[in-house]
Amino acid sequence: MIRITIIGSGNVAQHLIKIFSKSETIEMVQVFSRKKKGLTHLVDSDKITTNLLDLKEADLYIIAVSDAVIGAVSEQLNFQNRLVVHTSGTAPLDTLDAKNRRGVFYPLQTFSKNKSVNFFKVPLCLETEKEQDYATLEFVAKSISNSVFSISSEQRKALHVAAVFVNNFTNHLYQIGQEICEEHQVSFEILKPLIQETAKKIRFLNSVDVQTGPAKRNDSSTIAAHLNYLTQENQKKIYKLITQSIQDNGKTF
Amino acid sequence: MIRITIIGSGNVAQHLIKIFSKSETIEMVQVFSRKKKGLTHLVDSDKITTNLLDLKEADLYIIAVSDAVIGAVSEQLNFQNRLVVHTSGTAPLDTLDAKNRRGVFYPLQTFSKNKSVNFFKVPLCLETEKEQDYATLEFVAKSISNSVFSISSEQRKALHVAAVFVNNFTNHLYQIGQEICEEHQVSFEILKPLIQETAKKIRFLNSVDVQTGPAKRNDSSTIAAHLNYLTQENQKKIYKLITQSIQDNGKTF
Repeated sequence: MIRITIIGSGNVAQHLIKIFSKSETIEMVQVFSRKKKGLTHLVDSDKITTNLLDLKEADLYIIAVSDAVIGAVSEQLNFQNRLVVHTSGTAPLDTLDAKNRRGVFYPLQTFSKNKSVNFFKVPLCLETEKEQDYATLEFVAKSISNSVFSISSEQRKALHVAAVFVNNFTNHLYQIGQEICEEHQVSFEILKPLIQETAKKIRFLNSVDVQTGPAKRNDSSTIAAHLNYLTQENQKKIYKLITQSIQDNGKTF
Repeated sequence: MIRITIIGSGNVAQHLIKIFSKSETIEMVQVFSRKKKGLTHLVDSDKITTNLLDLKEADLYIIAVSDAVIGAVSEQLNFQNRLVVHTSGTAPLDTLDAKNRRGVFYPLQTFSKNKSVNFFKVPLCLETEKEQDYATLEFVAKSISNSVFSISSEQRKALHVAAVFVNNFTNHLYQIGQEICEEHQVSFEILKPLIQETAKKIRFLNSVDVQTGPAKRNDSSTIAAHLNYLTQENQKKIYKLITQSIQDNGKTF
């Protein structure tokens, strides 16, 4: 059994607590949360501490807090030479205080409080400072996911920026699609199968090969009609810029 | 049995030929194609004509050609007062020549030659000039799809522009994600579960509610780090513009 302590109570922390609690090879030792209340539905009350200085011994401490406070939290830990990891896509490994053996345990997925996630499909990106710690982290990762990768801090940066494009920005395009529908009294439901199919295609086909639409076929009259039809400035600007980017297809402009 | 003739041989035409050929309530009378060769795997050779003036009588003619030639093709038909529809998301109903009874049969989905589509889930947007023709078009649509909508030319415009955002532009963001991964030697495969989850969320949750990331939480240091990390001008410009649009959230800027 590997003994794990989770530090944090946000989305990622809660998903990890839920999944580790079900695992037969992981023992959830403790959870640190500033407030006790928010977590009692997930973990026994006596396992929750609101005092960072009360942490018991564990094989692995997972700091799942916002990027800005990872460093400060890791500094406050009153022990050393133990395995301490964070879950951030952006923070480098050395954001963590050097008194402990450092690592990263980054689940590359989007978590919402209101939607459960099949964790076995969530890619886990692992990094450890010391080679001998990698086996421990890998054991933990493989006990909850079928998709485990060794990723350096440098590679993680690339993944995180790319994730902003394919998740945050894509979701914003969905929002714009919905706004256009609402403005013209059409149900956004009609577009949902298209959204699903667009995502499904990318599993097996190349994005460049499946690109269609007015930008791709240089259909300037449709592009002009669309720009004329849009009423919101942000929508017009995004339409123009992405159309240009598709037409230039990677060439600098 | 409703007798249908398809005019065209592109992606949409081929998907319609395939699906109508399987239907027990539809009789595929004929297909018009400029070249006979490309369609013989889908339909008997004697049902293919390369001469528009050779079209036999049918209950419904579906013109599935590129927008630019819909008008010209409909003018060349040497019959009148029959039900003739096009399949375009952009062309208004009156693009069709007025000598026939006009309509629109727009499948709102992305079709690739290399990927089959479950047609029963494809939303079909219908419009007819004459009310009595709607029942015919609806019967045909419901014989191949569970998702049939009455959509005016004006509403169809909104759907088409919105589709460009959620399909064409989203697919381009996937391409950028892949380019960033390749530039930094990370497998794009790691991002694919995130792409699927982003699309799945939108089925039941609101895009505004599920938005996460540095733009949403006004994390200016991460935004600056990402912009600094990106090497391609088009990627930087798109990153800046969509970040601003998320932050302003619909307000004019």
